[in-house]
Amino acid sequence: MRVFNFSAGPAVMPVEVLEKAASEMVIYGDAGMSVMEMSHRSKVYEEIIETAEELLRELMQIPSNYKVLFLQGGASQQFAMIPMNLQKNGKADYVLTGVWAEKAYQEASRILEANVLASSEDKNFSYIPEIKGYSADADYVHITSNNTICGTRYISLPDTGNVPLVADMSSNILSEVMDVSKYGLIYAGAQKNIGPAGVTVVIVREDLVELEAAAKLPSIFQYKTHVKAKSMHNTPPTYAIYMAKLCLEWLKGQGGIVGIQKINEAKAKILYDFLDSSAMFKGLAEKKDRSLMNVPFATGDDDLDKRFVKEAAAEGLVNLSGHRLVGGLRASIYNAMPTEGVVALVEFMKKFEKNA
Amino acid sequence: MRVFNFSAGPAVMPVEVLEKAASEMVIYGDAGMSVMEMSHRSKVYEEIIETAEELLRELMQIPSNYKVLFLQGGASQQFAMIPMNLQKNGKADYVLTGVWAEKAYQEASRILEANVLASSEDKNFSYIPEIKGYSADADYVHITSNNTICGTRYISLPDTGNVPLVADMSSNILSEVMDVSKYGLIYAGAQKNIGPAGVTVVIVREDLVELEAAAKLPSIFQYKTHVKAKSMHNTPPTYAIYMAKLCLEWLKGQGGIVGIQKINEAKAKILYDFLDSSAMFKGLAEKKDRSLMNVPFATGDDDLDKRFVKEAAAEGLVNLSGHRLVGGLRASIYNAMPTEGVVALVEFMKKFEKNA
Repeated sequence: MRVFNFSAGPAVMPVEVLEKAASEMVIYGDAGMSVMEMSHRSKVYEEIIETAEELLRELMQIPSNYKVLFLQGGASQQFAMIPMNLQKNGKADYVLTGVWAEKAYQEASRILEANVLASSEDKNFSYIPEIKGYSADADYVHITSNNTICGTRYISLPDTGNVPLVADMSSNILSEVMDVSKYGLIYAGAQKNIGPAGVTVVIVREDLVELEAAAKLPSIFQYKTHVKAKSMHNTPPTYAIYMAKLCLEWLKGQGGIVGIQKINEAKAKILYDFLDSSAMFKGLAEKKDRSLMNVPFATGDDDLDKRFVKEAAAEGLVNLSGHRLVGGLRASIYNAMPTEGVVALVEFMKKFEKNA
Repeated sequence: MRVFNFSAGPAVMPVEVLEKAASEMVIYGDAGMSVMEMSHRSKVYEEIIETAEELLRELMQIPSNYKVLFLQGGASQQFAMIPMNLQKNGKADYVLTGVWAEKAYQEASRILEANVLASSEDKNFSYIPEIKGYSADADYVHITSNNTICGTRYISLPDTGNVPLVADMSSNILSEVMDVSKYGLIYAGAQKNIGPAGVTVVIVREDLVELEAAAKLPSIFQYKTHVKAKSMHNTPPTYAIYMAKLCLEWLKGQGGIVGIQKINEAKAKILYDFLDSSAMFKGLAEKKDRSLMNVPFATGDDDLDKRFVKEAAAEGLVNLSGHRLVGGLRASIYNAMPTEGVVALVEFMKKFEKNA
């Protein structure tokens, strides 16, 4: 029996997608082989990767002056590739809104002069800080659009003028409508809303692809290399991209991003409404900045939190521990988490609270 | 119906492995979820990645002073990471035995002083050149143990004294017995003999992990980072590693590397014996250096080659074109290619030759 998996990532995937993948695992269509066995340069595979890109472009309404790349190495590799490729003046502004934002900042600091534009560290990253201005000579401003660990998200974007806005969207890409044209570069590890771990999506505005600093890099680390080769400079993670395609098809079937946003808002509301009414459980993020994807909460009693995790797991509600760095509890409710999963969780929380 | 897939990579996988993966796709064991949905830090997933490493260590008899890493970015990313991490004097020796060796050399040239120690370019890389000496102050000597495009392999290794020998084993790792202790670093993209595209195995001697030059790199590009985090610095390509584990279990069932080597030698002999007796088809690599994995051949007539590819495909023998850079024909016969596939190919070649 399948459980409800509240893991922060890798995370729940649509069961229909997994079933389709299982049915095509040994033989895909009339190819006589698994997708895993296909040459990435074969016609049958090219159609898969091209469809994945088309679907992503359609769903996110990506303007034609943006390139879409399927890379490897996760968001963590982008933490390095972004400053390596985008530096001109050797300065960039970072907004610190959580552990992942800090990691991006620390990696960038090894490459250029990274400045902290704003931070919410003073209150355990429980809110999105107000961003007043930016350095006019910054090569880019970096934000983390959704904070997986502390459960906040940007509702509105900072004004960065002509300075490119760069966003790590790993944990909320495809979850609500975003205006791609507001960004210089968007990146996301796939393992939350796109597909399985092992592929990273980079959406980059054309003018940021061929900057001077990039030309001196090893070719594998240049965006230009991957743009020119259409993500086929080296063998792409072919199966992960195929799975992403299946997930994107599923998402289209949910009414696209407009459709899933409605579902996500309603789904998150069920959990937040309960948290706001509970005497035992408290949401950890400030209400105005709440994430639709990651909901950290706690009873305030570590032992009780642990008991909750254990008893919930026994009911098929798994991976409800908070991140190992912050403790407490967390429910990640990505696109593929069915509403019934959240309903079941809230029912269990009510029961737990009543019996405590 | 499944075809016999002679693709050079991504390539054929054992059908038993694909069937097992299909059966476990929606629910793995008693986990209540797919392997793709598991947190990489969960106990159930940790067991998968640890078993994959143990199996690789056991099969290759990897000494305990070597670290095993599961990385992303393919061999192509290692082309850069190796010079970045291993440089001390800023010099390295490269042996050019094909397109991939040249790519490794070119990428290294962007990072340090890469010297050509020997090359077989004079005869279209149809042989392994004799290697006379090496630079005593080289940081390493780089070879490509098997050349996927031109179908050669090293039967014996060059003596490099105290200079670490580095080998790209992408296309023949796990195909025959290799003495890991002769190498400083071994790397291989998974998509031929290890598993699906999207994971790269690096086997590195401990003393090469923490060199001074490496400390200045972005942390994601340091081997040290991945050694310390046991390949969990960032989310690993979890499903690709799970598939690698299944392939390694399958390989163990074939009698391990000793067992598969016998099978591979017998399998390759069937094809080479026919090529040596055929009036129409000629093997392209020098006999003394023939690969057990990749067998390039040609009729000498481009139109006839094309007709062969087309007619073979109609018989379920697919991906027999030579590499787009060299033309002709090629049969890649990795571990997972059943002997029956090679027998069927030779039978078809005989028929084709007779009817021509």
